[in-house]
Amino acid sequence: MTEFIPPGTRFHVLPLPFPMKRGGALHGARVAYETWGELDAARDNAILIVTGLSPDAHAAANEGDTEPGWWEAMLGPGKPIDTNRWFVVCVNSLGSCKGSSGPASIDPATGDLYRLDFPELSIEDVAEAAFGVVRGLGIERLACVIGNSMGGMTALALLLRHPGAARAHINISGSAQALPFSIAIRSLQREAIRLDPNWNGGRYNDDTYPESGMRMARKLGVITYRSALEWDGRFGRVRLESDRPDEDPFGLEFQVESYLEGHARRFVRRFDPNCYLYLSRSMDWFDLAEYGNGDVMAGLAKVRVDKALAIGVSTDILFPLQQQQQIADGLRAGGADARFLPLDSPQGHDAFLVDFARFGPAIGDFLAGL
Amino acid sequence: MTEFIPPGTRFHVLPLPFPMKRGGALHGARVAYETWGELDAARDNAILIVTGLSPDAHAAANEGDTEPGWWEAMLGPGKPIDTNRWFVVCVNSLGSCKGSSGPASIDPATGDLYRLDFPELSIEDVAEAAFGVVRGLGIERLACVIGNSMGGMTALALLLRHPGAARAHINISGSAQALPFSIAIRSLQREAIRLDPNWNGGRYNDDTYPESGMRMARKLGVITYRSALEWDGRFGRVRLESDRPDEDPFGLEFQVESYLEGHARRFVRRFDPNCYLYLSRSMDWFDLAEYGNGDVMAGLAKVRVDKALAIGVSTDILFPLQQQQQIADGLRAGGADARFLPLDSPQGHDAFLVDFARFGPAIGDFLAGL
Repeated sequence: MTEFIPPGTRFHVLPLPFPMKRGGALHGARVAYETWGELDAARDNAILIVTGLSPDAHAAANEGDTEPGWWEAMLGPGKPIDTNRWFVVCVNSLGSCKGSSGPASIDPATGDLYRLDFPELSIEDVAEAAFGVVRGLGIERLACVIGNSMGGMTALALLLRHPGAARAHINISGSAQALPFSIAIRSLQREAIRLDPNWNGGRYNDDTYPESGMRMARKLGVITYRSALEWDGRFGRVRLESDRPDEDPFGLEFQVESYLEGHARRFVRRFDPNCYLYLSRSMDWFDLAEYGNGDVMAGLAKVRVDKALAIGVSTDILFPLQQQQQIADGLRAGGADARFLPLDSPQGHDAFLVDFARFGPAIGDFLAGL
Repeated sequence: MTEFIPPGTRFHVLPLPFPMKRGGALHGARVAYETWGELDAARDNAILIVTGLSPDAHAAANEGDTEPGWWEAMLGPGKPIDTNRWFVVCVNSLGSCKGSSGPASIDPATGDLYRLDFPELSIEDVAEAAFGVVRGLGIERLACVIGNSMGGMTALALLLRHPGAARAHINISGSAQALPFSIAIRSLQREAIRLDPNWNGGRYNDDTYPESGMRMARKLGVITYRSALEWDGRFGRVRLESDRPDEDPFGLEFQVESYLEGHARRFVRRFDPNCYLYLSRSMDWFDLAEYGNGDVMAGLAKVRVDKALAIGVSTDILFPLQQQQQIADGLRAGGADARFLPLDSPQGHDAFLVDFARFGPAIGDFLAGL
């Protein structure tokens, strides 16, 4: 399986060995990242962005890659994350296939792909790798670390393990521990991939890519990333214009089915299935209660940060609002000036990728106040 | 594929031909049902129960089958649906594999299984078949028709097409039209079955039952039938006692995964995959707006019933609360004394099967007031 690396990607090579939380180590592993803006002389205007499961480091256009990025509306000169003021680093997660080392990378020890020989991946490993990039850029203390979705977990792990690593934190639709509904969804996504005969215990290639499993996983993902409310207004019961072909009696009929199909088509063969399995499982494992003697609030209270904003969305069924409330409460218990901001976006978990009318001011105002 | 018929099942043979809404007709089709209590001399104490997608007609123990049924706590002498007073009929849906004719039945024209040659099934056909049983039992007017989930659709279709068929109606976690979130979920369940190579265009047999697809479909069903809130309290992040076996690195680890696995195991090979596809699709197609010039409220207002209760559950993500509110509002617009009763059960869409503390009094009080 090929990796999918945007053209402007830069790389940070991790120290070797790079020990992994659950055992094993990486040798000569790299982390992909991109930057925007200029690091000032005091090196204190840096913002780190850690991402959800699938994005690459190309959050927005920059000199190395002028194509729009996945957070184009949020990041740039004069935008909510204003690159006239901030030096912004976005990191591709360790374990991904968008430039950072992961199951789809070459294992230098063998010259073959890691596949399932990649060590077990935890959110803490993703956080350590991202922190390696920050240190590699000569940044002693971040102005802010911003984490979306899985990145919200990554950011908390980074802050917990590196007290003082950042002055401020924005946690967007994140969670301090995986809960059973989201575990169940991810477990089913992984099962869909593993059941695809082409997956073959991770030993597929481009000709035998487990497309069916990845399509199922992605469709289930999209269903849980958005909301029923949004879809009622957007699709209702509108049917596709063409009739179902006779040869496929259970084929696509409604617009919402075609929407899912389109999302799946754009995703499969652009993401490595083994990397998907590793990153998905790392989220299930994440639990800040490990750092609080079994109490997630105690774990959160060990995070040291001056100021924090936890943003959630009322229609999010995957990382429900109570989890962002918990993050704000826990960080406050740890001494942070932490605020919980629930938003009424109709777009569910993915709202931060689309609802810039709500997320733009929320993020922009917080950063302006730093 | 075999059918799965409880021992006490009785059968009503539908008139031939039995025309199907979307075209075609059945010849010599039968509908499975069971009864409880005694029909009084005036024949006006009859209650019809129409079910969700998967149940058989064995809602509770009776003389023909003393095993507990799927609504055992709700139905019997002195229970909320009190069989000392009511004569209760529960019908297995047309298109199912629990005794009523469906894709897993023998096509009398060929002597082979119908499979995908069964005509396209609509909720209206399920309703007409159930109504055939009622008429066959010599019941001119039902005291009440109770429909759960898909059965809530069936009940509305029956009442709309047969004005005066029942004096009262209880709609439980039902819907007057399928909306895109539930369509998306069902579409994905059907895709999982169709993607299983064993499905083979519907031409499987016991040795080649599409077990993987049915397991996926069932697990996704169970995820959407319950609620995150319930699972947080019930499973939390508790792990299975045994460690994951080394040979299956992405196998079951959390209790919630094992719970889903158990549900799937109990379901597969006990439900026919083609029947599942037919019934699932019939729900997507259901839309009372067809009877109201494109307006679902106008369709509902054409239903003639004296008294109605629409019960919904706040944690239901599949048939959300607004849909039961809509049913009550629409029936009221049609002249019914209709009440909407939202319940705070944590168990989501399936609450009516387990939360008898809330559902028992709600149903019992309504019936006692008739």
